[in-house]
Amino acid sequence: MKALVLTGSTSPSPPLHSFLSTKSLLLSPLFSISTNFLGSPNLQKPFFPIRFSAVPMTTFARSPRTETPQTNPNRIEAENDAFNDYVRHCRAVTSDLVSCVPVSGEKSNTLCMRTVLDEIGGEEDEQEDNLWQQMKVEASSDIDQEPILFNYYFSSILSHDSMENALANHLSMKLGDSSLPSGTLYDLFVGLLTQDQEIMIAAKDDLRAVKERDPACISYVHCFLNFKGFLACQAHRLAHKLWSQGRKIIALLIQNRVSEVFTVDIHPGAKIGKGILLDHATGVVIGETAVIGNNVSILHNVTLGGTGKVSGDRHPKIGDGVLIGAGTCVLGNVRIEDGAKIGAGSVVLKQVPARTTAVGNPAKLIGGKENPIKLDSFPSFTMDHTSDISKWSDYVI
Amino acid sequence: MKALVLTGSTSPSPPLHSFLSTKSLLLSPLFSISTNFLGSPNLQKPFFPIRFSAVPMTTFARSPRTETPQTNPNRIEAENDAFNDYVRHCRAVTSDLVSCVPVSGEKSNTLCMRTVLDEIGGEEDEQEDNLWQQMKVEASSDIDQEPILFNYYFSSILSHDSMENALANHLSMKLGDSSLPSGTLYDLFVGLLTQDQEIMIAAKDDLRAVKERDPACISYVHCFLNFKGFLACQAHRLAHKLWSQGRKIIALLIQNRVSEVFTVDIHPGAKIGKGILLDHATGVVIGETAVIGNNVSILHNVTLGGTGKVSGDRHPKIGDGVLIGAGTCVLGNVRIEDGAKIGAGSVVLKQVPARTTAVGNPAKLIGGKENPIKLDSFPSFTMDHTSDISKWSDYVI
Amino acid sequence: MKALVLTGSTSPSPPLHSFLSTKSLLLSPLFSISTNFLGSPNLQKPFFPIRFSAVPMTTFARSPRTETPQTNPNRIEAENDAFNDYVRHCRAVTSDLVSCVPVSGEKSNTLCMRTVLDEIGGEEDEQEDNLWQQMKVEASSDIDQEPILFNYYFSSILSHDSMENALANHLSMKLGDSSLPSGTLYDLFVGLLTQDQEIMIAAKDDLRAVKERDPACISYVHCFLNFKGFLACQAHRLAHKLWSQGRKIIALLIQNRVSEVFTVDIHPGAKIGKGILLDHATGVVIGETAVIGNNVSILHNVTLGGTGKVSGDRHPKIGDGVLIGAGTCVLGNVRIEDGAKIGAGSVVLKQVPARTTAVGNPAKLIGGKENPIKLDSFPSFTMDHTSDISKWSDYVI
Repeated sequence: MKALVLTGSTSPSPPLHSFLSTKSLLLSPLFSISTNFLGSPNLQKPFFPIRFSAVPMTTFARSPRTETPQTNPNRIEAENDAFNDYVRHCRAVTSDLVSCVPVSGEKSNTLCMRTVLDEIGGEEDEQEDNLWQQMKVEASSDIDQEPILFNYYFSSILSHDSMENALANHLSMKLGDSSLPSGTLYDLFVGLLTQDQEIMIAAKDDLRAVKERDPACISYVHCFLNFKGFLACQAHRLAHKLWSQGRKIIALLIQNRVSEVFTVDIHPGAKIGKGILLDHATGVVIGETAVIGNNVSILHNVTLGGTGKVSGDRHPKIGDGVLIGAGTCVLGNVRIEDGAKIGAGSVVLKQVPARTTAVGNPAKLIGGKENPIKLDSFPSFTMDHTSDISKWSDYVI
Repeated sequence: MKALVLTGSTSPSPPLHSFLSTKSLLLSPLFSISTNFLGSPNLQKPFFPIRFSAVPMTTFARSPRTETPQTNPNRIEAENDAFNDYVRHCRAVTSDLVSCVPVSGEKSNTLCMRTVLDEIGGEEDEQEDNLWQQMKVEASSDIDQEPILFNYYFSSILSHDSMENALANHLSMKLGDSSLPSGTLYDLFVGLLTQDQEIMIAAKDDLRAVKERDPACISYVHCFLNFKGFLACQAHRLAHKLWSQGRKIIALLIQNRVSEVFTVDIHPGAKIGKGILLDHATGVVIGETAVIGNNVSILHNVTLGGTGKVSGDRHPKIGDGVLIGAGTCVLGNVRIEDGAKIGAGSVVLKQVPARTTAVGNPAKLIGGKENPIKLDSFPSFTMDHTSDISKWSDYVI
Repeated sequence: MKALVLTGSTSPSPPLHSFLSTKSLLLSPLFSISTNFLGSPNLQKPFFPIRFSAVPMTTFARSPRTETPQTNPNRIEAENDAFNDYVRHCRAVTSDLVSCVPVSGEKSNTLCMRTVLDEIGGEEDEQEDNLWQQMKVEASSDIDQEPILFNYYFSSILSHDSMENALANHLSMKLGDSSLPSGTLYDLFVGLLTQDQEIMIAAKDDLRAVKERDPACISYVHCFLNFKGFLACQAHRLAHKLWSQGRKIIALLIQNRVSEVFTVDIHPGAKIGKGILLDHATGVVIGETAVIGNNVSILHNVTLGGTGKVSGDRHPKIGDGVLIGAGTCVLGNVRIEDGAKIGAGSVVLKQVPARTTAVGNPAKLIGGKENPIKLDSFPSFTMDHTSDISKWSDYVI
């Protein structure tokens, strides 16, 4: 089985309508794009010619969801070994679209899929291209189902020859206003994405993270177009690049627009890793000197805040693979170590050791301070917020 | 005393200005509607002729507020009987605009006003019409006080011949953007509201719920135009209809726009009853498999969330008459039974029995797990968040 | 060293470009202001002539930050004396831009900088003018760094001859929509600001409060243009003025727009003092009968809410100098007395005595109910959320 995929190259055939499987789409007025898009930079590009390449649908058919067993069958007595087992197990059942990093001290010894791909080289480029191609397939399937979305999907996905351009366009359409018109933002964002390839690599890891961990995410294009956590995170990556270049004024202006449009307030100075899921995202606040590792999952209304009015390093440091539940406040320059889990509604003012679970207000470790229960899987991957409650004696109603 | 009410019928007299009691309104340029409304579908309708009907103001003059006594004088020894007494009492003092359902097992035995009306038939239609007529009276009174709002009230209320059209128009104006222009949304929404009468019945119950329970709500039209909780809930009802028809793509797109515009994130799969108050509403998150009963009051920043990344039934089930305080997280497929109350800032991971009060992080039952204190009134109706604190020994500062 | 400052007076020289230090700015088409600003009322004003006055940069060079020592060296045995010492100390090290009020009973005996200035008279006007001049200096410095922001800064800051006009314009640009177009809002706001000088005095105190207490605030103009907490607070001041004039309909409409645009929901009936910092601001909810004193700092997701559905005085009363941490709910008509601190994520249902710290859910006083530890500095000034945790035995992980 093959699927036709839009690409941006210049081969003139087959014609555009060949991928449109419903008659109504044929009638969609290609040149009467809604005036809502006037000012959108992508209109300045020629609509034709657009080439269609045939790629095997099977490339995208397998599920990227990791079906992690709730009880890890590989668990053995030595906890660290068990944890490494989890990491290996995670690799084994994971599709090649899943980024996966080890937790805590074993980093250098544990090869993960992404590292392998990096070393092989070339394959990753292909994989990245595949992701964008898959999104175009998803987009054409979506407008097949909902022809009234043709204009929107065309201008936001199908008319772009790369995810970079599509992301720059989509963010600039969302964030543009009288302070920074969409056109200005688009040029700015395209420039930054061209300068720094790392931003797109991280953005693609984020896309995979959302698709992997959020059961409500039905496709990559669904996340890309709709998820304000994803979009706020990418806007932050761009603002952070500007901040690191010393362009503080415009970085702060973007922070503010993201706070208004997506209600996600991330200071452009904050450092955020790859493979990040900001689920629901409303009300997230992340301070200037916060650092977030890779493969972290953060729910809505989470605060990584400072304390005191003194400048300087004053915000939390979040390790790899951490999960932070909804409505939690982590305040001050404290470390949440790799693989830790913070329950919903917690208030955390002190360090949380690796692979432990902290819950409550004030937060306490499940199992007690002296001998906390250690997690045998990445909580950010399992998204399991509640399975340890029977171990927390207070958590009985 | 009589009040003139705009209706949408075609009788040509009296002329429009007869209901405008201030001179300044006469000068309002009817045909120079602000260009802000260009694209609004209601402009495609002829402005004239508009008929005015005279309805007795007294129809609307009585207060719809239930003045529930803080201590129910009917309370007797057997708790269930006392609760039924409450329900009867509630019916007795309630105006005919109040929807009222019984709690827990006594449902089939307790007739409530709405059920009575359903059985009588005809009367409900009249009541529904009365609600829309009352809103037009309120609207004309508002522009009497604030002539600068004439254009807005005309295009959003007075130019519509039914609440369905006005709601479709108002939501499409709020949610429309380049992804789904207002005109497209309007056509979509009008179609759904015509197909499924239940949506408007629920919307009207919601309007009454807000007016009844929120002392800050000064009129139905105030709620209809301004309350983002009300508007987000109606947008959800429309998205849920699309979702149940298999139109997932567009349902999810509407969810996203509602999350951006109103910061209320309700998955279109969630099932929500009638008579719902989402007070303030900022930050509310409701997951795909959540179910909410009738006559529920939910404050801002409440999460009905899942746990784990496994698909399937993973979100809370909220019974009738439940009150959930601000900032509370209910996580997992747990039941909050009929008439329960959850205090502000609570974290709930287990079932809460009917008519009990759960508070804290982790939530505990007031009165203790074995013998919790039972409420003798619907907390969602009384909106009483705090009166039991003296029974919770911890709640002393 | 001197800096050129834009003022609104009519002296024709030096020409505009003299303050534009980069060539690109010379090329900025002054008369081709982005169409995004069409409809902005400031375009109706002539762009020229604009006079530039030279003011000493040193006027603005000193840091307005109070470097309050973490341990107050003046602390003596009698607590009240120590606290007064703090107030005096605060005055001593504070720049003349810092507003400073005493806490609790000592008010009448403690002169603060602002009071002194009020008595001297004249000087305050000068100081107020200086603030606006400083913001113009900051604005010209910003566009020096980011020429693409020229249009925005010109229309929002540099083209205005007073902060009143700039504030009215900026808020009307942010809040305007089809319900209340920007032009209508601008006229309304300018009228209110002209009628009631107190609003601008409070707004300027707020600007100084943000700059003083939030290390992430890099300049007054940064706060003025970007901080949604600041903007929401000023929009509330305008809505409250309308409310107190009996113009409830339009006051409530502004409340709703602020809730949509800034996700800050403040009932126009609420009374709010001067020198207010709403940090991050997302999700703040303040009820109709709430009263907030002077020099208060409130973090995001804070609720000052009611309980029950009875109208009347039902919301919290917040004293001077109070700090309320992120995600905290204060419910009911309870007093948070002067100088108190409420930790993040707390639920407060009872009075909190002056200068004490309440934390947790339910909130408890640090040090215990009988003998709570008393703060020796204003928590709203120090923004110290966490330094007492060692005294709260529960706050150990």
